Amino acid sequence: MTIRSFIPPHRILMGPGPSDISPQVLQALSRPTVGHLDPLFITMMDELKQLLKYAFQTENEFTIAVSAPGSAGMEACFVNLVEPGDKVIVCRNGVFGERMRENVLRCGGEVVLVDDEWGTPVSVDKVAAAIEQNPDAKILAFVHAETSTGACSDAKALGQLAKRHSMLTIVDAVTSLGGVPLLVDEWQLDAVYSGSQKCLSCVPGLSPLTFSALAIEKIQTRTAPVQSWFLDQSLVLGYWSGQGKRSYHHTAPVNSLYALHEALLVLKNEGLENAWARHSKMHQKLKAGLETLGLSFVVDEASRLPQLNAVYIPEGVDDAAVRRYLLQEYNLEIGAGLGALAGKAWRIGLMGYGARSENIALCLKALQEALQR
Amino acid sequence: MTIRSFIPPHRILMGPGPSDISPQVLQALSRPTVGHLDPLFITMMDELKQLLKYAFQTENEFTIAVSAPGSAGMEACFVNLVEPGDKVIVCRNGVFGERMRENVLRCGGEVVLVDDEWGTPVSVDKVAAAIEQNPDAKILAFVHAETSTGACSDAKALGQLAKRHSMLTIVDAVTSLGGVPLLVDEWQLDAVYSGSQKCLSCVPGLSPLTFSALAIEKIQTRTAPVQSWFLDQSLVLGYWSGQGKRSYHHTAPVNSLYALHEALLVLKNEGLENAWARHSKMHQKLKAGLETLGLSFVVDEASRLPQLNAVYIPEGVDDAAVRRYLLQEYNLEIGAGLGALAGKAWRIGLMGYGARSENIALCLKALQEALQR
Repeated sequence: MTIRSFIPPHRILMGPGPSDISPQVLQALSRPTVGHLDPLFITMMDELKQLLKYAFQTENEFTIAVSAPGSAGMEACFVNLVEPGDKVIVCRNGVFGERMRENVLRCGGEVVLVDDEWGTPVSVDKVAAAIEQNPDAKILAFVHAETSTGACSDAKALGQLAKRHSMLTIVDAVTSLGGVPLLVDEWQLDAVYSGSQKCLSCVPGLSPLTFSALAIEKIQTRTAPVQSWFLDQSLVLGYWSGQGKRSYHHTAPVNSLYALHEALLVLKNEGLENAWARHSKMHQKLKAGLETLGLSFVVDEASRLPQLNAVYIPEGVDDAAVRRYLLQEYNLEIGAGLGALAGKAWRIGLMGYGARSENIALCLKALQEALQR
Repeated sequence: MTIRSFIPPHRILMGPGPSDISPQVLQALSRPTVGHLDPLFITMMDELKQLLKYAFQTENEFTIAVSAPGSAGMEACFVNLVEPGDKVIVCRNGVFGERMRENVLRCGGEVVLVDDEWGTPVSVDKVAAAIEQNPDAKILAFVHAETSTGACSDAKALGQLAKRHSMLTIVDAVTSLGGVPLLVDEWQLDAVYSGSQKCLSCVPGLSPLTFSALAIEKIQTRTAPVQSWFLDQSLVLGYWSGQGKRSYHHTAPVNSLYALHEALLVLKNEGLENAWARHSKMHQKLKAGLETLGLSFVVDEASRLPQLNAVYIPEGVDDAAVRRYLLQEYNLEIGAGLGALAGKAWRIGLMGYGARSENIALCLKALQEALQR
């Protein structure tokens, strides 16, 4: 087999992520690599922390990017905050709630499941009842924006509920960060992780992460060692911390961090509120078009994420054939269904740089054509 | 604080990694992102596996890149192969042997340490004695190329020794892959991990990894679940496997994998043997110059890595001041000492694209100047 340089086509990414990346961010990505302990790189990391704090709306000192994808960010939260025997209430209304359950079990924790139907948000009432029945539960874990369904849960109400019972929260904000309001400090969330490749429109491979003072306290007072060396945040702290000398932990993914810095700068320059408003406005536009095509949404309007539009595949339509047609004829990627929605729904992403009129017009026209074949 | 785009200077990277990256690889990095389940991307991943097999000199079907830095590659080996209570012989002759010990403990394994002095290779005789005394040991773990000292251990002899006692091997090849001979199949090594940012001259953030059939068998027959979800290779297999439909595990770091594909293509086009010869030749050139400057090596010639030259800092010379001068005046990065060698040695890397005459001439001239100040 003769292998040549890989020259990818220019896809338009309207799936559940990775999302479209602006030329500006791709350009930042390919700037010359510097050492991960270079003074200039450390200055850039300090700026990156500032920008991440802005995106998360937090003053948490521990606000960094994990050097691995969102699922490692999830694991970083669980391995650092859950000790063997700890009881954790896990809300499951899609694929990522189930993954949280897996994480707790692998940490030796005890899971109390609160199940909600796929496509619906987490029921705050059910969670309240579960807490009532499990006063010894230490942590509440839930997904803010379920990427597998497009449902947005009430992170504010869930955060406040947990605080009333002195519980820590672990929150999956992979798809929400930058796309819908997420106010880490105001909502008193403790451990929140995200992904670089969704509404931040950066390359995949990094997981923004923030820990509150309470989360840090839990880490510092835990008795069992963290089972992961790579994700032990008490070690990572020595590299990302602003105080004194940086100590080597692992080699940071230098170029990907350049790209994240640039992507966050784009977000800051637009303004968070403006970015949220743009996602909402673009969603309205897409929604109108999809409804004209006769497609109906998986999630009710009240809890629908503007950046992730899951719609049912009409009866008799060949799921794979439509997606193949869009990709081959238009270089357009939309997402397949995942888990319980596999073969039943498409997931159309409007994330970050991808949430713009050009993409919507193309998607609607191409989809119309594909459905009429 | 006003934050602007980060425009790094063009550093010449002659530390312990990241190493100099060719413009060709940086260009590949910034090509348009495609989806991680795009058919074209999956074809690229198949090619990447072929190229990795060539670099590792293996036919192992499970040969992939972990979506995180080398320390996660290390952890992937330990969490998948070590079960609680398993006895592991760990060879420690530098920072990374110590990290292996940490990993075994965090997996609930029992460590038998074989210590050798920093700067010396692992003693095959000591390991043989340790195996004799611990016939129930299941795994032998050692570092092929110690990045903290520049010592190369005899991976062939250690691999054969382990096989004679039906033990599995876990081998750190972070700094060796592409720089010195590493013959995974011929030496019967079982779990070997590396890093993208050393002699492959790719961006940091990926960890090439290969598992032998015996390693896979151990994973498939283990009774305790793997403690890490992100690094559970039985799950990752479903995404990287060539058979049938790819299943989603995590979002692959698409652009970094483009760069690795290109970097491996560069290696294949040069030819492994030629790359090894070039590293050796460049080392001779650097060595002659360093000795002229009166610098002496930490590691004996017989076990010295050509790609990582650790030399003692002459008495009375200000370590940090010299490195700062090189960086500020010449944009040249050399590495500080690590662990027991901190403040006592410099580590001068000649890795991959960085192992070329221009770099050596610059380094020698600049270092001479810095030492005479």
